[in-house]
Amino acid sequence: MDLVAVLHALGDPVRLDLVRRMAADGEVPCSPQHLNVPRSTLSNHWRILREAGITSTRPEGKARYMTLRRDDLEARFPGVLETILTAAAPEAAVGATSAGQRQ
Amino acid sequence: MDLVAVLHALGDPVRLDLVRRMAADGEVPCSPQHLNVPRSTLSNHWRILREAGITSTRPEGKARYMTLRRDDLEARFPGVLETILTAAAPEAAVGATSAGQRQ
Repeated sequence: MDLVAVLHALGDPVRLDLVRRMAADGEVPCSPQHLNVPRSTLSNHWRILREAGITSTRPEGKARYMTLRRDDLEARFPGVLETILTAAAPEAAVGATSAGQRQ
Repeated sequence: MDLVAVLHALGDPVRLDLVRRMAADGEVPCSPQHLNVPRSTLSNHWRILREAGITSTRPEGKARYMTLRRDDLEARFPGVLETILTAAAPEAAVGATSAGQRQ
């Protein structure tokens, strides 16, 4: 695991949303219902997350389910993911609008 | 300040190196001696850091000096920058080579 790769992977609104969703729900399907993102784009996002060591994949039939490698990340980069998840909590989810506050 | 923009800004080896250097030295000149990076590329890196709210700039004659907005970042995203700086500490600096360990 490389810190720059982890930060790069988290530094995108769709990927950060996927990470927050995995943190909240445990497992997330490769094509989550809530995201209006082309499949190929999503596939690329999942690849970047996987290659950074952030996710593991469980295949089930034709579907794949992703989970956050929370313990591995915590062991390698203590506090990094957890403080990011906490900081991300009040942020608007992808697709939602937010009034003011962002600056 | 936007968390995604901050993570994106930190998710690059040159920019993370600049941030670590500011954390260590306080102030860093816009063209640090140690970095063998074209001036225009460096300029772009500083712009991304500034636009993410990570740095402030002090002009002095024709030079500019950058500092980390450490307190502002801590107030807005508690623990995020500090845990990243701690996690980055054992990582090799830009240009240095490292044996094993990175995976």
